[in-house]
Amino acid sequence: MAVKRTYDENTVVIFDTTLRDGEQSPGATLSSAEKLEIARQLSRLGVDVIEAGFPAASPDDLKAVQRIAQEVGTEDGPTIAGLARAVEGDIRTAWEGVKDAAHPRIHTFLGTSPSHLRMLRIDEEEGLQRIRKAVTLAKSLCDDVEFSPMDAGRTDMEFLIKACAVAVECGATTLNIPDTVGYVTPKEWAEKIEQLIQETPGAGPGSGVIWSVHCHNDLGMATANTLAAVQSGARQVEVTINGIGERAGNTSMEEVVMALHTRKSAYDVRTNVDTTQFMKTSRMVSNYMGMPVQPNKAIVGANAFAHESGIHQDGVLKDAETFEIMTPESVGLHTSRLVLGKHSGRHALKVRLAELGYNVDGDALNQVFSRFKVLADAKKNVTDADLEALMTDEFHKPQEFYRLDDIQVTCGTMGMPTATIRLSNNKGETFIQAGVGTGPVDASYRAVDLVAKVPNTLIEYSVHSVTEGIDALGEVTVRIGEPNGNRTFGGYGADSDVIVASVKAYMAALNRMIASLGNESIQPEGDAATLGTHSEKTDVAE
Amino acid sequence: MAVKRTYDENTVVIFDTTLRDGEQSPGATLSSAEKLEIARQLSRLGVDVIEAGFPAASPDDLKAVQRIAQEVGTEDGPTIAGLARAVEGDIRTAWEGVKDAAHPRIHTFLGTSPSHLRMLRIDEEEGLQRIRKAVTLAKSLCDDVEFSPMDAGRTDMEFLIKACAVAVECGATTLNIPDTVGYVTPKEWAEKIEQLIQETPGAGPGSGVIWSVHCHNDLGMATANTLAAVQSGARQVEVTINGIGERAGNTSMEEVVMALHTRKSAYDVRTNVDTTQFMKTSRMVSNYMGMPVQPNKAIVGANAFAHESGIHQDGVLKDAETFEIMTPESVGLHTSRLVLGKHSGRHALKVRLAELGYNVDGDALNQVFSRFKVLADAKKNVTDADLEALMTDEFHKPQEFYRLDDIQVTCGTMGMPTATIRLSNNKGETFIQAGVGTGPVDASYRAVDLVAKVPNTLIEYSVHSVTEGIDALGEVTVRIGEPNGNRTFGGYGADSDVIVASVKAYMAALNRMIASLGNESIQPEGDAATLGTHSEKTDVAE
Repeated sequence: MAVKRTYDENTVVIFDTTLRDGEQSPGATLSSAEKLEIARQLSRLGVDVIEAGFPAASPDDLKAVQRIAQEVGTEDGPTIAGLARAVEGDIRTAWEGVKDAAHPRIHTFLGTSPSHLRMLRIDEEEGLQRIRKAVTLAKSLCDDVEFSPMDAGRTDMEFLIKACAVAVECGATTLNIPDTVGYVTPKEWAEKIEQLIQETPGAGPGSGVIWSVHCHNDLGMATANTLAAVQSGARQVEVTINGIGERAGNTSMEEVVMALHTRKSAYDVRTNVDTTQFMKTSRMVSNYMGMPVQPNKAIVGANAFAHESGIHQDGVLKDAETFEIMTPESVGLHTSRLVLGKHSGRHALKVRLAELGYNVDGDALNQVFSRFKVLADAKKNVTDADLEALMTDEFHKPQEFYRLDDIQVTCGTMGMPTATIRLSNNKGETFIQAGVGTGPVDASYRAVDLVAKVPNTLIEYSVHSVTEGIDALGEVTVRIGEPNGNRTFGGYGADSDVIVASVKAYMAALNRMIASLGNESIQPEGDAATLGTHSEKTDVAE
Repeated sequence: MAVKRTYDENTVVIFDTTLRDGEQSPGATLSSAEKLEIARQLSRLGVDVIEAGFPAASPDDLKAVQRIAQEVGTEDGPTIAGLARAVEGDIRTAWEGVKDAAHPRIHTFLGTSPSHLRMLRIDEEEGLQRIRKAVTLAKSLCDDVEFSPMDAGRTDMEFLIKACAVAVECGATTLNIPDTVGYVTPKEWAEKIEQLIQETPGAGPGSGVIWSVHCHNDLGMATANTLAAVQSGARQVEVTINGIGERAGNTSMEEVVMALHTRKSAYDVRTNVDTTQFMKTSRMVSNYMGMPVQPNKAIVGANAFAHESGIHQDGVLKDAETFEIMTPESVGLHTSRLVLGKHSGRHALKVRLAELGYNVDGDALNQVFSRFKVLADAKKNVTDADLEALMTDEFHKPQEFYRLDDIQVTCGTMGMPTATIRLSNNKGETFIQAGVGTGPVDASYRAVDLVAKVPNTLIEYSVHSVTEGIDALGEVTVRIGEPNGNRTFGGYGADSDVIVASVKAYMAALNRMIASLGNESIQPEGDAATLGTHSEKTDVAE
């Protein structure tokens, strides 16, 4: 399981920011438990640095970063980074977040473009002063310091070089150049990075300073820009799984890493990534965040390795090299194996789950086993994908203020779809309500609303079947928003009955919303506080 | 509505291949009616060339191309191109397809890389002979001839230049260089295109020959490669809407065009595209093909213009230029307007549909109006998105061998989800069946199967809600396959009841499958023959 990370001058450091910049995707809020599980998977994938969050954003963010630092930031594990604005409070909080990791890093940033300086109401000289103070403080706490001049893509070159030089002078060991708005072209970007490396005092080749880039995909060029920077000498890339992130997202890790591995002749560098973990990581991030991956997404899309046309198929058979430049196996894509059925026992399930990377025992195993039996009764063959959906559904629930006990639905073209539900709350009270709606999902959501009485708007609702076959397990992700439109909450549910899965997903989202409301008004601490508080944060953009 | 197309030396010709290479996406089969409607929308979008299909692939393909040539290839409309292998039969059939267009084009190709020549069992000299014969024949039929050396990315440079020179000598006016496997980097590609333009006899600057590129996105660099070629002098780009296409897809038109428009300083070229038509075109292609667009897709993804983080939002307010490089309006993104309700009359509906680009009258209007009334009864506000979903559902059905009359479903956590359906066939017979399944969708599909008796496998099933709000109209796309796995058929359904939408989608797919089976065994001609015969084609790859 453990990835061995080694470094030389041709190693490109893979800096994952799925949990920080990626989590800023609208509606992609993760719970602490989900963040931790993703961090564990990123470690198995072999990333070098995990940016675990922005600790100063909220107490929950700090706690999530601390847990990842403690549990994933082991001696042979990845570096754990925390983000901080170039202000003392942020930097000290970031250090609180990462200090328990074997390899901690503080990542501090300042907007350096004219519009950012204007926004901060400071001039260039004051900007340099802030960088000096911030990096010096960070260095006094942590040996590994990264500095980012935010919106570098639109920062005057002379000032950018000055800003980077000051950061290095004060002890920054990584200089990260972000294209905050996804605006640059590969050619411009390669030239800019090359010039920076050559002209920044104290940060040239042999200085030990690592240059990094952080690109956004607004014009569809994040991958190409990132790779162009590697050709210019950058040795760290800031990326996310599935390219998630604000707007059109960040650079896709899987695209950059597979290009580096596949086109060795063009790039001549290496990474520590175990590419066979890509599919699993991609699915986990997509499921937990409720962010689907389109079929024609490079590397991890459902069609990425599918060949339709006759000539192609012929070509693949005659000469694999003709049309394939990567094998499906190299990214961890295997045909879903039929593993278990209704006669499979508890031990077989435990063994298979362990092979999939889930170590469950005792009560948790009993719980999963009973879910498995229900599924195996309904469905002839239970596949790995079914098991993964079941695990996600079972173990990534938010705190349950309301739990679904039973539901019964009647619908069809006759009109008047009706749902009857029985819910219980965390005090053990039981509620039964019936709702009528435009369809069975609407009717059951209305019935839930009659009990929960939490006003909300359904923003997104999507379903897909986990596996092939008409008896597939249905996965539903929903996103609901506050009526005032400020915050959104996601929920996930899986069941062989799509209506039941829909209600589970809705209740998961609703429970998160209730937790966050409680967090503001009633419950100052506790588990609930870690859930669904995303939009309260002072998020940042790079 | 009409786009005025003008040309100068800085005009990049937008060659859309959504209907040819895009339609080769696994499962993305379109009916003739859908192809025609997409072609009309592409014309409104202002693309310069529509590659309408590969006429020699099947009689249905030929017919679809002919219809597009006749109805969309008007005097002030786009050029209509038909693809042809470098063989006489293909070229003559391509001409049959496009000759009725005001501006027809024959696009012929030959694989020129060593592995392709091996596949064709010919040597280089024979390859040049084939190009000579093919282009000469095409030119004798059509003034506008395009030649593509397939897999140019891995063709020896010297031979590639020879192949292009022969094509130009024989009358080709456009030379299209494909990166068939999505393998190149922007730097390599820019150098290759520059060298080709400089060194190909008779095809340099001032020769009147237009150089074109056709990229694939396997490593996530199709957009960057295409734009790099433009910087090297290419003046045609082959692209698809949403970047659909085999494997990871083709170059995204919307990314390339928005980059050219937004980064005028870097590219200094123009296009004839009306970018405000992008969102509508993207949705139409996504719906008709059943290929969802991921939220973080550049330009047309649901999040592409959404800003989550506090600092960003602040920045957007203070200084729009800080974080936005395109406006949502520039790609045609408007908040869905609430247009109609239960008291809206037939005229109001007709007017609104016309504004959305659908001209319906007479019986068709009556049909839509009765659907609209049912929807308006169930749903408070009917939005533009609802209307578009309804139009798609109503007018893009395949020939109906079986029609859903009624359905009634009971499901929930009590187990034994049961569906009762009443279907009628095209002979007017009525069938009633009940099915029990693992969930309501499974149960109703089983009930349908008891009537239709067409063995198939459910390959994909997805649902999303069209509009915000808990009473949203649900859209379902399904893809089913033949038990032997050779061919797949897609179906689409929309209804306020997700189970009803699911059954509609399944029956649409099933009707396509039946049409294609009938096409082989019983019905040699007729409308049915135009549907769902995708995988029989000799498709090609570029």
